[in-house]
Amino acid sequence: MNIHIIAVGSELMTPFFRDTDSLYLTGGLNDLGLDVAEKIIVGDEPERLEAAIRRSKDEADLVFITGGLGPTGDDRTREAVSSVFHRPLHLREDLVQAMEERIRRRGRTMAPVNRKQAEILEGAEVLPNPAGTAPGQWLEADGKTVVLLPGPPHELEVVCETQVWPRLAARKRAFLARRNLKVAGLTESDLETLIEDLYPKEPDLRLTVLASPGQIDLHISAFSLVSMDEAKTRAEGLISRLGLRLGPRIFSKDGSDLESVVGRMLTARKETVAVAESCSGGLLSRRLTRIPGSSAYFLEGFITYTNHAKVVRLGVPAGTIENHGAVSAETAAAMAEGVRRTAGSDYGLAVTGIAGPSGGTAEKPVGLVYCAVAGPTGTRVERSIFWGDRIRVQEQASQKTLDMLRRLLDEEG
Amino acid sequence: MNIHIIAVGSELMTPFFRDTDSLYLTGGLNDLGLDVAEKIIVGDEPERLEAAIRRSKDEADLVFITGGLGPTGDDRTREAVSSVFHRPLHLREDLVQAMEERIRRRGRTMAPVNRKQAEILEGAEVLPNPAGTAPGQWLEADGKTVVLLPGPPHELEVVCETQVWPRLAARKRAFLARRNLKVAGLTESDLETLIEDLYPKEPDLRLTVLASPGQIDLHISAFSLVSMDEAKTRAEGLISRLGLRLGPRIFSKDGSDLESVVGRMLTARKETVAVAESCSGGLLSRRLTRIPGSSAYFLEGFITYTNHAKVVRLGVPAGTIENHGAVSAETAAAMAEGVRRTAGSDYGLAVTGIAGPSGGTAEKPVGLVYCAVAGPTGTRVERSIFWGDRIRVQEQASQKTLDMLRRLLDEEG
Repeated sequence: MNIHIIAVGSELMTPFFRDTDSLYLTGGLNDLGLDVAEKIIVGDEPERLEAAIRRSKDEADLVFITGGLGPTGDDRTREAVSSVFHRPLHLREDLVQAMEERIRRRGRTMAPVNRKQAEILEGAEVLPNPAGTAPGQWLEADGKTVVLLPGPPHELEVVCETQVWPRLAARKRAFLARRNLKVAGLTESDLETLIEDLYPKEPDLRLTVLASPGQIDLHISAFSLVSMDEAKTRAEGLISRLGLRLGPRIFSKDGSDLESVVGRMLTARKETVAVAESCSGGLLSRRLTRIPGSSAYFLEGFITYTNHAKVVRLGVPAGTIENHGAVSAETAAAMAEGVRRTAGSDYGLAVTGIAGPSGGTAEKPVGLVYCAVAGPTGTRVERSIFWGDRIRVQEQASQKTLDMLRRLLDEEG
Repeated sequence: MNIHIIAVGSELMTPFFRDTDSLYLTGGLNDLGLDVAEKIIVGDEPERLEAAIRRSKDEADLVFITGGLGPTGDDRTREAVSSVFHRPLHLREDLVQAMEERIRRRGRTMAPVNRKQAEILEGAEVLPNPAGTAPGQWLEADGKTVVLLPGPPHELEVVCETQVWPRLAARKRAFLARRNLKVAGLTESDLETLIEDLYPKEPDLRLTVLASPGQIDLHISAFSLVSMDEAKTRAEGLISRLGLRLGPRIFSKDGSDLESVVGRMLTARKETVAVAESCSGGLLSRRLTRIPGSSAYFLEGFITYTNHAKVVRLGVPAGTIENHGAVSAETAAAMAEGVRRTAGSDYGLAVTGIAGPSGGTAEKPVGLVYCAVAGPTGTRVERSIFWGDRIRVQEQASQKTLDMLRRLLDEEG
């Protein structure tokens, strides 16, 4: 089955908006064992829109069209499909009334322009949209299936979950098991070298690698025509081969991010953490506290930008900063130990470095960062030189420190 | 001129990767007064790739193809264009040697597979790629222009800046003035109601609205066939109409984000700030310190999650928390005043609230946040109920507090 996705909207032809709807649709289709052959993004000029729909009608079996179902003059998806498939639009008074009722409940009056959202292609099924006024439409015509869907992501998702995926279940081609492994402490090229020979050759097993600062995601998709169990077994096979090769550098096998993994470990152990940050400026605390329930283990954070604050808040000896500098292994260790002591936490984390763009020297260049973890059994410090701009240095520093805590907790068992 | 962009790569057909190259290309083309008619995203299967290129050759005058120029068997853009345009590929030995030299300088040996990157379409111009091994190609054939570009964004950008935009300057259709206004303190629907009648009707003036938590971006594009001055005057006209309507809710007219605007104000006044955060967990500090040079005005941050920390670190009276609760206007004010006092800064910022998902009550629901700014002339506190999940609440809380500081500094003049 050849599947196309057409995303409609002039805002998508500007430099500001990315089409994200097609990623969601692709994920849902993949879950049914279906692949997307082509994605098309087009504005709302009628002739261009119709040309794109006509082409996809010729080439594909199943065409999703997202967007262009709103009430304004720029919303022309209905008309364009009507023209290409020679199916007139009929106004459904029951849908108009439901729309009026919906808008009235919000204390507003429906503008007449909204009526066009109740125009349905002849022979199409209505796909109710509980999250908005424009319903989707499902048309089987000329041996093709075309599905019109609202563009706003939360409307698209609810219509797909309740209407589209159930209808497509009958066309399910295969069972798909998806897994996401996450790796820290490796560059993308080092990872590629390590796992080069593990890239699957079989068409029913796929590995996609996605790198971001301090983290690499390994997306595994395994298909089976027989059963979900077979698909899962196939995925597990690749996961265990990757596990043998990458060992503890894999911090997650279920797509959880590092702050969630660390949070779960601390929660399970009923232990706590406190944070002292210089160059990462609050990012490490922000990541830990992003997680729901983090107040159970996150006690306190200090952003000690100045030397004075390092001394007064954390008890870093002034002599340590004088002798070794604020960016040094000694200061990082004293910060981690100091925040652990003053907050009364089980673990203390610290980051000090030069995030840039200025402040670097030949001896201590921009990107030099010391990360430290203090715990009941002692203190570890690691020195890194991170690449990239200020924000990338901060991101890698926070990732590195979280990963040091994870590995320490892992070793302590 | 009808322009298509084709993004090539099987990773783009997964749920994990967004095509960002086309946004960059669109921005550069818009700067030349050129619009993009259609974007196509396709995998690397030869027949699908060739079909997409053939269609764009038929429909467009200028076709950009990004990706698929690498050395692997999955990189088939050169072959597909060769087939569609009937232009054989010729191996350029001088390019092979340059590639070998480049790889040798990195201490590696070139794999034979890399040679195919030096295959150039007959009659095409080579677009040197200083950031990678695969050069771009510029082909004029059958009355069309097709431009092959490397997919990695930093390679794409350097090839465009040095090779593509200069070549297209001759086809410049119009002068474009772009401006980005940023607004805080309004929901998208309130903004739409306020500026509804200001949406330009003229085709040479465009307004695109993009909302994110706590912020709305207004993108203004003004074209002129005559001169950049005329385009700028056109943009300024719309900007002043928007300015009259939106007043001080506009915090930036040059695309700067709120933390940069606040940072510039503090720098100019040689004043300093310190931050006390509860539910925003470090995000406010992180945003302030994201900005290069923030060490000049950011003195210190405290993430005081526990009541104990609020009392001990910030000097919030225990009675205030007992009588009014940790989430209250009184506690927020005491936190802002306390951090200002202990850090010795000109301004103290504070956030306390319930970010969720748990911890809410009927009286104090999830999303309830008090933001406070303490300064030389007194303390302001604002109460908000923010919508959305934990992260959206945290984002809006940090945005609100920064905006309160901006407006205070603005009023003080």
